[in-house]
Amino acid sequence: MTRTVLALLVLTWLPGAAAAQTNPAVAAARSWRQQHERAIVDELVGLVALPNITRDREDIQRNAEAIAALMQKRGIAASLVSVPGGNPVVFGEIRTPGATRTIGLYAHYDGQPLDPKEWHSAPFTAVLRDKPLEQGGTVIPLPPAGTPFNPESRLYARSAADDKAPIIAILTALDAIRAAGLQTKSNIKFAFEGEEEANSPNLEQTLAANRGRFAGDIWLIFDAPLHQTRRQSIIFGARGITALDITVYGPRAELHSGHYGNWAPNPALAMARLLASMKDDTGRVLVNGFYDGVEPLGPAERRAVAEAPAIDASLLQELWLGAHDGGPASLMELITQPALNVRGLASASVGDQAAGVIPATAVAAIDIRTVRGMEVKRTVARVVDHIRKQGFFVVEEEPSAEIRRAHPKVAKVTVRPGGYDAVRTPMDLPIVQDVIRTVESVRGPAVKIPTMGGGVPLEAIERPLGTRTVIVPIGNHDNNQHSSDENLRIQNLWDGIELMAALLTM
Amino acid sequence: MTRTVLALLVLTWLPGAAAAQTNPAVAAARSWRQQHERAIVDELVGLVALPNITRDREDIQRNAEAIAALMQKRGIAASLVSVPGGNPVVFGEIRTPGATRTIGLYAHYDGQPLDPKEWHSAPFTAVLRDKPLEQGGTVIPLPPAGTPFNPESRLYARSAADDKAPIIAILTALDAIRAAGLQTKSNIKFAFEGEEEANSPNLEQTLAANRGRFAGDIWLIFDAPLHQTRRQSIIFGARGITALDITVYGPRAELHSGHYGNWAPNPALAMARLLASMKDDTGRVLVNGFYDGVEPLGPAERRAVAEAPAIDASLLQELWLGAHDGGPASLMELITQPALNVRGLASASVGDQAAGVIPATAVAAIDIRTVRGMEVKRTVARVVDHIRKQGFFVVEEEPSAEIRRAHPKVAKVTVRPGGYDAVRTPMDLPIVQDVIRTVESVRGPAVKIPTMGGGVPLEAIERPLGTRTVIVPIGNHDNNQHSSDENLRIQNLWDGIELMAALLTM
Repeated sequence: MTRTVLALLVLTWLPGAAAAQTNPAVAAARSWRQQHERAIVDELVGLVALPNITRDREDIQRNAEAIAALMQKRGIAASLVSVPGGNPVVFGEIRTPGATRTIGLYAHYDGQPLDPKEWHSAPFTAVLRDKPLEQGGTVIPLPPAGTPFNPESRLYARSAADDKAPIIAILTALDAIRAAGLQTKSNIKFAFEGEEEANSPNLEQTLAANRGRFAGDIWLIFDAPLHQTRRQSIIFGARGITALDITVYGPRAELHSGHYGNWAPNPALAMARLLASMKDDTGRVLVNGFYDGVEPLGPAERRAVAEAPAIDASLLQELWLGAHDGGPASLMELITQPALNVRGLASASVGDQAAGVIPATAVAAIDIRTVRGMEVKRTVARVVDHIRKQGFFVVEEEPSAEIRRAHPKVAKVTVRPGGYDAVRTPMDLPIVQDVIRTVESVRGPAVKIPTMGGGVPLEAIERPLGTRTVIVPIGNHDNNQHSSDENLRIQNLWDGIELMAALLTM
Repeated sequence: MTRTVLALLVLTWLPGAAAAQTNPAVAAARSWRQQHERAIVDELVGLVALPNITRDREDIQRNAEAIAALMQKRGIAASLVSVPGGNPVVFGEIRTPGATRTIGLYAHYDGQPLDPKEWHSAPFTAVLRDKPLEQGGTVIPLPPAGTPFNPESRLYARSAADDKAPIIAILTALDAIRAAGLQTKSNIKFAFEGEEEANSPNLEQTLAANRGRFAGDIWLIFDAPLHQTRRQSIIFGARGITALDITVYGPRAELHSGHYGNWAPNPALAMARLLASMKDDTGRVLVNGFYDGVEPLGPAERRAVAEAPAIDASLLQELWLGAHDGGPASLMELITQPALNVRGLASASVGDQAAGVIPATAVAAIDIRTVRGMEVKRTVARVVDHIRKQGFFVVEEEPSAEIRRAHPKVAKVTVRPGGYDAVRTPMDLPIVQDVIRTVESVRGPAVKIPTMGGGVPLEAIERPLGTRTVIVPIGNHDNNQHSSDENLRIQNLWDGIELMAALLTM
């Protein structure tokens, strides 16, 4: 079923063979890859074997050191750069004699939190499946060296796609062009971040403190999945992001729901009422002023949205959905608008653990995606105002007994560290045009996306360095990133290596 | 702070000393207890050391056998009675020559589900604290045999109060009256249930299959906490109960909230909107027809409600609440009305585990408390109708991909096994009057409660046996039953033993 759907989505276009003939770096990458498939995948398997949840500082340090070691193996002097309390950015550079420009290559090595119970295999022990789990994929052994991988097989592990694959693709492409006696034409810099999944709370400060080292004419961001049609995409901006935690309070401790039901206020219900007040049934945010200042799309961007392949109907099928929010606007159009999302909700227990209680608290995790013309801080203030308007006394710290006794409704609202505003890079800058040409020469006509839905810390890079950013994804769109059973389609890794070879030699 | 509040609530009345002079069984109970405090508590500590979550059948079996052994130690031929798939009821009886009536004594030995992480001590390893945890109580050793317990100290463990304490109190009272050479006057039957916390799915069937064994003129239910003033209460009915699990569906798997936020419907938000539609801000249930048929209170019941001590203001203080639902009606009045409670809520993850996703599902656990004049089944049907009216396609089994694709909003609604209708016993029946007199002779004027808020399976006892039920609590009201850090105040155990001695000899 899902197989049929994917087949519908994937408009096959096979650019590789043609491009390989005209670009020696791409030809070198393909040849090298074909000779070293197992070794390349082994290197990725080794990297994803290192647990990398952003908050686990010792694990993160091990990742940073392992990546630095992979770079040093290639003769790149790598160093770990950080500010106090921050996870290290792994930095490295290739100085090219006579180069007139510097191209930065960014990826991140940290991964989203996870619950191993929700995975079908251990999250940090990569397994290869012959096809996606949803299509009944079963675990198969890695082919021995010399035997090609099934390009539709997938490697399952946290960060296999998001975002360790680009690191291995870059380093492999470097091996390939060197083995072929090819050279870089620009100066190349590498920055592999360790806090992207926590919304990059220290990236801007780290770059600002090391401006000279990280300076570049453009930074290419290898993150995010490819377009749902599997066509190459190039993305010129990203929504901003911030995350809030809201706690609503009921009685001091859980109470027997029989003895106090009808009398003790229920925080789960109060939370439900609060969240319900924030959006209408079509997904439109009801927070006063939420959409104020939103910059409308320009003509080039409207054209890009209009030209993007129509995928909504197929996506509904693939995702088992009967409808989407915000219709009749398309996904591509809707992600150019700001969003407010309930990313988690908890109060007492459900299922077999549920007890007959009135919960003591209810907690919601919210994320907000902003677009150009909005400011994260102002938006958060509007949401807090909205909560107050629903009758809540809002605090930022755990409320005392006195505060809880003094107010019928109390909510604690805390803003997660990290978060950044939206960014959009003009498509017509010469260096941006050069990137587009290079990418399309390898991967065929790209889907050009003015703003992607997900956040990447573009602002944290652009502002301190005075540079521009362009996002070039390599991962499959159905990679389950941020969720359980994250996976990388092997062909996407192969394509990524060829893309990196072209970019390293542009 | 809480200490002050409790002092306000507790209108001290010391009935024991006076009653002990006129009722030899009560005097015997006190004297025996004073000589055996440590041994009595040790027996309870041993019983709560047996994990007893209702669904854990092997644990439940161990509890039933341990209780049967405690009865056999007292020469009561105990047997385990069950129907297929049900947890055993521990049955026993004392036949009294010349007796003209049979009094049944009911308690339950199973306990509510729990999360050990939320407890301050291991839930099945009882610890004694010098005062309540909320007042800074610290763990103290059990006094050695011969040294009296601090009557305000508390024993912390799952089921210390709800509902293993009455079992130990009954057996200790039996020891005491026998040691004093006293006799029972009625036939006495014992039934200790193992599924009360799962809403007694098999109790009625078990009793119906063993009518002769369990027949009695009245069954006294030792469950529920005492009145918040610490005065003895006698309760003549209970609300009915049923529990529902509701699952609302979003995309097939969690999606990246950036790439799909604004487009993919969010099940946590849909659940919030659904729950918010069920009750208004004052706690009134908005489900159509929910209150239809509710029998109004009669004059005796209205008088009992009016005469009950006013505790609402003190309770708000104690529970850190700024207001209660349903004002200006009192707690005592509100629990005579039906209730709909969100007892748990879950969608994706919150706190540091929260990821940037649109959840795939949201789950709510609901309990509904009914009163006389309502039927659980009809009430459930009305709630399901309400969910349909909110636009959901309602299923009872996990919905297929086809169903989810065909309907914009899908909800799975399942009714938990167990549940029963409300029951109310007339206060003026001669045997009920006799129970009231006996209880008040030991414990002073009782707070008489027409209907308690919590459910107990009265219907499952009354219907198959054609008998009546009266609830006589012994546990402290602030016992955290159903929640973490459940505890029993030692004086409540002492008082309970004296009460049991009087009831065993009535």
